[in-house]
Amino acid sequence: MDFDLALSIDVLARTPATLHALLADLAEPWVRGTEGPDTFSPFDVVGHLIDGEETDWIPRARIILARGPEVRFQPYDRFRHRARNAGRSMRDLLAEFTSLRGANLDRLRSWPLAEGQLDLPGEHPGLGPVTLRQLLAAWVAHDLGHVAQTARVMAKQYKEAVGPWVAYLPVLTDHPVPRS
Amino acid sequence: MDFDLALSIDVLARTPATLHALLADLAEPWVRGTEGPDTFSPFDVVGHLIDGEETDWIPRARIILARGPEVRFQPYDRFRHRARNAGRSMRDLLAEFTSLRGANLDRLRSWPLAEGQLDLPGEHPGLGPVTLRQLLAAWVAHDLGHVAQTARVMAKQYKEAVGPWVAYLPVLTDHPVPRS
Repeated sequence: MDFDLALSIDVLARTPATLHALLADLAEPWVRGTEGPDTFSPFDVVGHLIDGEETDWIPRARIILARGPEVRFQPYDRFRHRARNAGRSMRDLLAEFTSLRGANLDRLRSWPLAEGQLDLPGEHPGLGPVTLRQLLAAWVAHDLGHVAQTARVMAKQYKEAVGPWVAYLPVLTDHPVPRS
Repeated sequence: MDFDLALSIDVLARTPATLHALLADLAEPWVRGTEGPDTFSPFDVVGHLIDGEETDWIPRARIILARGPEVRFQPYDRFRHRARNAGRSMRDLLAEFTSLRGANLDRLRSWPLAEGQLDLPGEHPGLGPVTLRQLLAAWVAHDLGHVAQTARVMAKQYKEAVGPWVAYLPVLTDHPVPRS
């Protein structure tokens, strides 16, 4: 599937409501469970998505669109949320994410992005040369990856409880070694 | 995490709204995309979950609770939905799933399930002896596995569009061989 701006915005706009349906007022064992040491809980995932709104996707798009002499992005801190959100509630995080995402999509919609601008270059500190189109596509795939991760991490809390069904539920044995 | 009936029902009750937020009125390229031949699209996933409401989880729980001489379950047809839902819309499927899930959870809540009953046996045609507790835990994990699958399959539609970001988005290279 080729990148399409309108189809991308539609998915990005759904993520707050999807996570709200899955996580708001959910009991702590589901919210705080992980896949093992140094892996994200659903609570961590929402914190990480907030970090993305504040420091990753739109800030990087702005660097590209500014067309200055320096198009290299700042490195992204995958664990910024840990200290930032200590003691906060899931509902509080979901509200913050919903607000930040809404404002960022308003900003994105306000840019008159012609095809040529989608090809403008940036430089990722780890990946090298990228385009604005690839950045926006990665934002969509990143959202969906973390929705998938949230559901997978929740499922794994019942890995023992399902007994023999573990053989028929591949989600319970995905990512035996953490990949995200 | 030990099985808990109330915490399980809370997750099961969320799945229709989660899928509605992710999929209702979504464009066809997202709804019909798959991970390759003989894998499920998001449309197929919702059809498969409807089949589970009609033929799997609660019907099997009833067999266990009836405590008859025959506690062996009927085999489950993973492709029943294919012919059944040809020509229907995603919105139509989501409405049907929401209705069936609501009725099934009303039924589950109406059963006075004491601890001892959760240990009652059934026989799975492929897995052998199982308990009601394991069946209900598997229902929860099955839901979450298919939510994860839906988001993963959507993400993969942008596997090429993200360019170099594929290296940082493990969801795009999960399940290189279909597992569910």
